[in-house]
Amino acid sequence: GHTRIFRDTDDSNRGVFEDLSPNEYKSVRDYMFETSKIGLVPITKAFPNQSYIYLIDLHIPLKTSVLEHLDRGSVRLKRVAKVVVIRGNLESPRVEEYLVSPLPVPKSHRLARNPLYARYPVPYTSRPMDQVDYRFVYPIISQFTKEIYHILMDSYGLCYHNCTKGINCMLFRDTAPSGLESGDRITWFRAYRDVDGYFLHPLGLEIQIDHKSTDISDWMIERIMYNGHLIYTVSDFIERYNTGQIKKVSLLRPVGRPEDLYSSYHRRGTSEMPHPLRPPRLMEPDGNRFTITNQHVQYMHWDLDVRMRPSTGLQIFDVRFQGERLAYEISLQDAVVFSSGYGPAQMISNLYLASWMIGASSFELVRGVDCPDTASFLDLHHFVNSDEPMLYRKSVCVFEQDPGIPLRRHYEDDLRNGYRRYGGLVDYHLVVRHIATIQSSDYIFDYIFHLNGEIQLRVSLTGYVQATYDVPFESPYGNPLYFGVAGNVLQTLFHFKTDLDIRRVENRFAILEIKKETQRHPWYPGLNKTQFRLKKHSLLREMDLVVGDFPYPNYYLLFDENPTNQYGTHRSYRIINEGVTPFLLDDVNITNAANWVKYPVIVTKYDDTEDHSSSIYAQNDPWDPVVDFERFVNDNDTIVNEDLVIWAAVGIYHVPSTEDVPSTSTSSQSRSLRLVPYNFFTEDPSVSSPNTVQIIPDGEDIKVNMFGTSDDVSCAPQSLGPQTFYGYRADD
Amino acid sequence: GHTRIFRDTDDSNRGVFEDLSPNEYKSVRDYMFETSKIGLVPITKAFPNQSYIYLIDLHIPLKTSVLEHLDRGSVRLKRVAKVVVIRGNLESPRVEEYLVSPLPVPKSHRLARNPLYARYPVPYTSRPMDQVDYRFVYPIISQFTKEIYHILMDSYGLCYHNCTKGINCMLFRDTAPSGLESGDRITWFRAYRDVDGYFLHPLGLEIQIDHKSTDISDWMIERIMYNGHLIYTVSDFIERYNTGQIKKVSLLRPVGRPEDLYSSYHRRGTSEMPHPLRPPRLMEPDGNRFTITNQHVQYMHWDLDVRMRPSTGLQIFDVRFQGERLAYEISLQDAVVFSSGYGPAQMISNLYLASWMIGASSFELVRGVDCPDTASFLDLHHFVNSDEPMLYRKSVCVFEQDPGIPLRRHYEDDLRNGYRRYGGLVDYHLVVRHIATIQSSDYIFDYIFHLNGEIQLRVSLTGYVQATYDVPFESPYGNPLYFGVAGNVLQTLFHFKTDLDIRRVENRFAILEIKKETQRHPWYPGLNKTQFRLKKHSLLREMDLVVGDFPYPNYYLLFDENPTNQYGTHRSYRIINEGVTPFLLDDVNITNAANWVKYPVIVTKYDDTEDHSSSIYAQNDPWDPVVDFERFVNDNDTIVNEDLVIWAAVGIYHVPSTEDVPSTSTSSQSRSLRLVPYNFFTEDPSVSSPNTVQIIPDGEDIKVNMFGTSDDVSCAPQSLGPQTFYGYRADD
Ligand SMILES: [Ca+2]
Ligand SMILES: [Ca+2]
Ligand SMILES: [Ca+2]
Ligand SMILES: [Ca+2]
Ligand SMILES: [Cu+2]
Ligand SMILES: [Cu+2]
Repeated sequence: GHTRIFRDTDDSNRGVFEDLSPNEYKSVRDYMFETSKIGLVPITKAFPNQSYIYLIDLHIPLKTSVLEHLDRGSVRLKRVAKVVVIRGNLESPRVEEYLVSPLPVPKSHRLARNPLYARYPVPYTSRPMDQVDYRFVYPIISQFTKEIYHILMDSYGLCYHNCTKGINCMLFRDTAPSGLESGDRITWFRAYRDVDGYFLHPLGLEIQIDHKSTDISDWMIERIMYNGHLIYTVSDFIERYNTGQIKKVSLLRPVGRPEDLYSSYHRRGTSEMPHPLRPPRLMEPDGNRFTITNQHVQYMHWDLDVRMRPSTGLQIFDVRFQGERLAYEISLQDAVVFSSGYGPAQMISNLYLASWMIGASSFELVRGVDCPDTASFLDLHHFVNSDEPMLYRKSVCVFEQDPGIPLRRHYEDDLRNGYRRYGGLVDYHLVVRHIATIQSSDYIFDYIFHLNGEIQLRVSLTGYVQATYDVPFESPYGNPLYFGVAGNVLQTLFHFKTDLDIRRVENRFAILEIKKETQRHPWYPGLNKTQFRLKKHSLLREMDLVVGDFPYPNYYLLFDENPTNQYGTHRSYRIINEGVTPFLLDDVNITNAANWVKYPVIVTKYDDTEDHSSSIYAQNDPWDPVVDFERFVNDNDTIVNEDLVIWAAVGIYHVPSTEDVPSTSTSSQSRSLRLVPYNFFTEDPSVSSPNTVQIIPDGEDIKVNMFGTSDDVSCAPQSLGPQTFYGYRADD
Repeated sequence: GHTRIFRDTDDSNRGVFEDLSPNEYKSVRDYMFETSKIGLVPITKAFPNQSYIYLIDLHIPLKTSVLEHLDRGSVRLKRVAKVVVIRGNLESPRVEEYLVSPLPVPKSHRLARNPLYARYPVPYTSRPMDQVDYRFVYPIISQFTKEIYHILMDSYGLCYHNCTKGINCMLFRDTAPSGLESGDRITWFRAYRDVDGYFLHPLGLEIQIDHKSTDISDWMIERIMYNGHLIYTVSDFIERYNTGQIKKVSLLRPVGRPEDLYSSYHRRGTSEMPHPLRPPRLMEPDGNRFTITNQHVQYMHWDLDVRMRPSTGLQIFDVRFQGERLAYEISLQDAVVFSSGYGPAQMISNLYLASWMIGASSFELVRGVDCPDTASFLDLHHFVNSDEPMLYRKSVCVFEQDPGIPLRRHYEDDLRNGYRRYGGLVDYHLVVRHIATIQSSDYIFDYIFHLNGEIQLRVSLTGYVQATYDVPFESPYGNPLYFGVAGNVLQTLFHFKTDLDIRRVENRFAILEIKKETQRHPWYPGLNKTQFRLKKHSLLREMDLVVGDFPYPNYYLLFDENPTNQYGTHRSYRIINEGVTPFLLDDVNITNAANWVKYPVIVTKYDDTEDHSSSIYAQNDPWDPVVDFERFVNDNDTIVNEDLVIWAAVGIYHVPSTEDVPSTSTSSQSRSLRLVPYNFFTEDPSVSSPNTVQIIPDGEDIKVNMFGTSDDVSCAPQSLGPQTFYGYRADD
């Protein structure tokens, strides 16, 4: 069978990195409601001037205690939950964070001031958009569309409040940030035709709603953009439209039958296979070769603990190879999307994805499409923007891939039309994947573990382009994707934290420079020779790495100073960022919460108070951010034999073209950060793999050594395929 | 079954791009022997002062006639062979190239002066090393080793002329170039312990042999390097060794049992699977979904003709998508390996791989390791450095890969814990692969065709590091790989020619620049807005692209100026070089034959006389090369609405580390050049694929649309596995 997942359901026994169980979430919630005296109301019933829980998540203890627990088996650590409470009922409204413990049966809670935060208290306006916002904003939109019903029908033949699904509906979606300066909470909503792939059907109607006040009677429409015209009130819009002072939107093309809809995934055009043949697929004659026990994954020489942080997505802890810890933590911190354009929603849009909940937006994966048929899946739970823990079925998949290429091979010619020997090993690797869908886009996150000790972090972009209504002013920013629809240039960047611990916690960092040298030729007196030469610069302080420094072809190395390996070289891991992109917008205040973008790779001294480089408050106050990453660097700590953390910004620029219809292709929109052993092992550790194949000639025949691995193949396991999809989250 | 290869054996019917058949090779050879009056002798019996055929290859007609033949079905083209003849018996020895036609029954031959060549006649000393060289050089080595037998036994316990295989043998291998200036032919040979992976066992003994003369009695040892000492004669070496004036080599470690040998692929260490499980593998329930007819490959909407050029490897011609030609030719031109080090062989080594015959060094591929079990293979023939056409079994494989990642997908959340719809399509793609083994290294060449119209050219490095004996002076260049063995920094670069024809032969080229703009905010009077803006620069002349220009994040576009697509944008292909590396050695004369390295991407006007950017004469006269690529650019032709050719240099720097034992891993040593449609198609052409999967909710259930593709799985086809390897070439 496929799945070898063992799930221990005993809450009293959960590991230090294991997500909260549904019962733990409930007991924290119930404890807070019953004991905290905050006067909480359920988020599903809350008004902005009340207090409610936005999020509950695991709070991981300090690294030193966790290491003591893991390595020296000291007493069990107290299990703690973090609870984010929106305090709309305080005189000065704010966001509060509480620590509740011990789990599974809480006995205490305390308001915690997070030393990471540059601002305290956390501003009320910086909280993520939640169902309370939407509950009171959409009626304003609904009221607006009623008042302009004749305009909508005249312009589009569509309406909002009273339409027939699949026939003449429209919908509105927000963008972010909500305003232009710290303290704003004024959000642009954009109208779309409500069809499959609606992101490619902007209607040229956008409204900005002020919803900053705790008093919803203050909430109102502040600006309307229709077909390039800016209007400040609904009545003015109606009057100017009625009197012909506004140029009417002309949507050139009807969208046609659903099966012809350009924005849909429906198959169309001349098929390359009139009688479709089934595609190649992976099979595993002996089943999965990895095991999953609760949230612990074991594959070949690898051991790791995975958890899903609701805001930032997958966190991987205690990554070991052959029992030896390589990394304490590997995790995404945030991702940003810098957009450009003319329409107000497009022009203002600069997304901070962690504030949209990358983890809690990692929805169910489809077997056979999102992950191979052979994958195993993790069901997870989140408590975000709801009153109950929600079950996220198949939110992570784990599979072993045969990439169709050798990891290493050599054919040894005998220079006489024969061979001396052949050896090879396929680059089998384990992939841990989740896919977050935020707004129009889908972000595929792969954490890949190779047989040779290499860890690859790969992001791949797909999903829809966030299109904008194509007025002529849009043309400097992108390309038309359809009649009246433009797709504009964007830069997407991902910030990864990799807390490697190479051999021990105290490490050093160096740049190995590849340079040119000219010297007298030792073998031909009188001549010179010019060639490469290496020079290793070991860094002393955090700011020794220059902003925007471009790492290629230099090697960036994290190493243990003592002892060296048996040949006298430092045992190191190399950091390769294959997604270095220049940062063009560094003096733009909307990027203040993403000043990590300046550093393709930077190393800092580990600090318990610097556990994350961003926060869920970045999106709605990017101008004066709650977390300021650059402080981690600017205190310029010594980085000599300290616990070091590598931070890497992996980026992609994308200019959409017609080929982004219906969706962006991953093939050229994929970037990796690689952590590669460098004089760390005495030899490539994949030499231990019994999947190696060796062939030597034996007269006219051959001798094949497969080291005990059978190559019999009987029947393939049954395909499970996409039929195993649910598609919805459920409360437990 | 697996293989759907149809091979038409009728020689009178071969396509314009099809390699010579064995009978064609023989008839050309026989014609040359019988008719040419050159006085040819077989290469297997030749002396350097005689004339012999080194190589016979297909000569492709001019592009204009081929296009006329392909597009307008004009009369059949005359089939021509090119014959490279080494003319050692001329008063001024040289290399000559003859054109012989028509095939299959030649009637004429003519000495052809190739207008591509900057030098004429082609210098005798620039010819590739061939079996004539080796036949008379190795006896000199043998004589040398007899004279120093006691030194070899004393230093190493090894010998050469009289050893017991697998016990105490050593061997010698040459490096290149052969000398220091144009006209030299003095080659360094390096001694190794003769074991599995001997490249990692340099002995610290190197000799340089002068074999420039056509008179072999002039050939002699010119220099000897032993353990860092330079000696000029054998007798001096013996005397100084005997009298203790030379420090004896100390090899610290015995190599141990064959199964413990650090340089071998033998499985060792603690196995991750004491009872080995079989790995995942691809299966194809309906068999291959591509067809191969002679040398024509068809896959989904793709059509292409492949051939194997003996020197440069795979050439792909007439690449079409949905019947429309995208490229006339896609091919490797040459590859260079720039090394560094202290030992003379290591210091002098700068390899030009086409001179070592990339195509004729693309040996048999192992099913299940080098290519998936499901691959189909091409058997090819070469006539290089032999008297007979040689059969290269399974020299190319073609397979369809399931990469385990979607090409595109979108999960459309309904913002109410459910979904509106899901769509996805796996990034199935066709791979055409060959692997060349040259000296210690294996180069994996993949030509990949995606469903979305993208062509990916990928090179991956594996095989052995060319190690050098580790004297202390080696330490600035690399790392110790074992006791007394160093692996040094190298840069490898591949030069690709892509003659794209976008919609027609006349194209233009542009750089789309992504820059920053600040403008008055159209929606917030009084404020400014800074964001991205695009600016397209259409180039007028070849030299408008600056040397070393770094393409990221700018887009490099080849396009058809008229007509535009239905949205008014130019139909284009984008060129992405993911292997841009700085060129540090541009003032070093050994790189003169590789001045293409300066240009990560450059575009030239097509010229019939500029069909290749390098030649098989580059290696042995890199200082004053026969082909000078920079001339293609420096005449600064107009590139406006001309037939354009894109040349791209794809490079990797590599500092070997202990993990390169036994071999370099492909995982982080892989680079791609991508040709990606950009406003070329009206929408992603993969929308036509019946492998798309769409899911929509249907109450609590789901509706899955697989567009006619079955997901039944019955039995998997039998694994053929590595047992199907031959390993040797044979004459027909
Ligand atoms: Ca610091
Ligand atoms: Ca660390
Ligand atoms: Ca030119
Ligand atoms: Ca062209
Ligand atoms: Cu549950
Ligand atoms: Cu044959």
